[in-house]
Amino acid sequence: MESDLIAWLRAELPPHPCLRLGIGDDAALVQLGSGSDCVVTVDIISDQVDFRLDQIDDPRRVGHKALGVNLSDLAAMAAIPRAAVVGLALPRQTALALAKSLYRGILPLAARFDMAIAGGDTHVWDGPLLVSITAIGAVGPHGLLRRQGAKPGDQLLVTGQLGGSLLGRHLDLEPRVREALLLNDRYDLHAAIDISDGLAIDLARLADASECGAVIELAQVPVSPAAKQLAATPGDARTPLEHALSDGEDFELLLAVPQATAERLVAEQPLEVPLTRIGQCITQPGLWQQDADGQRRPLPPLGFVH
Amino acid sequence: MESDLIAWLRAELPPHPCLRLGIGDDAALVQLGSGSDCVVTVDIISDQVDFRLDQIDDPRRVGHKALGVNLSDLAAMAAIPRAAVVGLALPRQTALALAKSLYRGILPLAARFDMAIAGGDTHVWDGPLLVSITAIGAVGPHGLLRRQGAKPGDQLLVTGQLGGSLLGRHLDLEPRVREALLLNDRYDLHAAIDISDGLAIDLARLADASECGAVIELAQVPVSPAAKQLAATPGDARTPLEHALSDGEDFELLLAVPQATAERLVAEQPLEVPLTRIGQCITQPGLWQQDADGQRRPLPPLGFVH
Repeated sequence: MESDLIAWLRAELPPHPCLRLGIGDDAALVQLGSGSDCVVTVDIISDQVDFRLDQIDDPRRVGHKALGVNLSDLAAMAAIPRAAVVGLALPRQTALALAKSLYRGILPLAARFDMAIAGGDTHVWDGPLLVSITAIGAVGPHGLLRRQGAKPGDQLLVTGQLGGSLLGRHLDLEPRVREALLLNDRYDLHAAIDISDGLAIDLARLADASECGAVIELAQVPVSPAAKQLAATPGDARTPLEHALSDGEDFELLLAVPQATAERLVAEQPLEVPLTRIGQCITQPGLWQQDADGQRRPLPPLGFVH
Repeated sequence: MESDLIAWLRAELPPHPCLRLGIGDDAALVQLGSGSDCVVTVDIISDQVDFRLDQIDDPRRVGHKALGVNLSDLAAMAAIPRAAVVGLALPRQTALALAKSLYRGILPLAARFDMAIAGGDTHVWDGPLLVSITAIGAVGPHGLLRRQGAKPGDQLLVTGQLGGSLLGRHLDLEPRVREALLLNDRYDLHAAIDISDGLAIDLARLADASECGAVIELAQVPVSPAAKQLAATPGDARTPLEHALSDGEDFELLLAVPQATAERLVAEQPLEVPLTRIGQCITQPGLWQQDADGQRRPLPPLGFVH
């Protein structure tokens, strides 16, 4: 549904001189005046769709997630977080207590990234809990990263480990803002995206935007312990690797970098989380998987489709 | 509930160096970098709370309203609209068609104010329709208007006519963006607010922020034909004047200006809508009403309390 709407909007929306980057990246770049730009992104999360409020021990985790997913979008572009505005739709019975709990999750995360809470709108209603946060960032001295820009021969790297976010990391995510800024500062990066819907589908988006293909070397994918735990759950029909390829909500960075940069990054490991090479960009369009024996087969763009 | 939350947030939120104006005005002012500021505001509207979707002939009007209320917040500060991001939570059954209708209300209004639609997030769920728009503006050459700044002796002026918005104007509102920019450009204005919750309550807010009192001369209040129509409805227990004082969702501007400016504004009538003097700011705190015979009595801050 969302992809249909985006396609329709692309056709309907006239180009706007103040919109320097619009639909198609993790955030937009808006020109405010001469020489003054801001990065902006919005994310909605809601009860029943993104979490089950009645199954969450502490609603602070929902507040943390609501701001965290926006920070992850800024991280994907290596934007510097500046401010957020918070829209809340609160179930009537518990409105004030719930709002305070949500803010107790939002405020510490905002403080950690030196982000101002610049305002909000609070709505009490008979519907389910919904949190809509808009984050505003600034462009750093090394510019923004985008989904486009990867070239055949570029190596693909991911931060952290993938899969099994459902066991808790989808709420307690760690947006890779500092990591993105550090890498963009010190290394030559070609393209980036955050893994929100799943490694396979988000890589397909990066490759599409960059007009190239991509191959994942399956044996290299860093599979998280949570993915293994989830695959071992009775009734779960997927392997740990399948979880890592398709679960999404990892909120790790996926980067396309030149070969020499990749070698430096893997050797230097400049982050507190591991950086792992998982494949490369290729001329042949499409998404591919490569077995340990070198065989290459198409990889469906698995993941969460909105 | 919202005022309790705002009081709690004021205590919890640390001051932030990049937040130049925060909670307490119609929009916030965020410093993005050296010499680069942006004005930001968010508003949520939803089915059952702000409108009844099943009673609206065309959902385009909901899209128009969702962006319009944000534009009215920018107008209250005389900020220049630049961009908006659109968050939608859509009932599953009609999601795509409803989204298109909403955008068909949003896009023409954005175009009229030369505003870029910079992105969005679309959520399909089993809850009611909710639209959460964040608008971003720039500061014009004459700076921003605020709720604070009115002084005893300042005259109070409103644009347009008040009351009865329920009969349609609450959906088909006309944000006074151009009017605010023109007035701020040419005249000496001390304070401003948009009338969203009701003339009385919004004037009380302006007076509170300005640390003065205010008196409304009841005979001067421009009562709209819709307020008269509503008061004439069988079962309606209020007078047209009471509707004008308390209905809200007029989205007209309420301005505090020096005496000499007020005389010029009323004589010159520089807008396409009428500018009417309705009272003045006074030293004595509180909100007051003055009858045609000059008697002054307390006026309760009537209006919509969130």
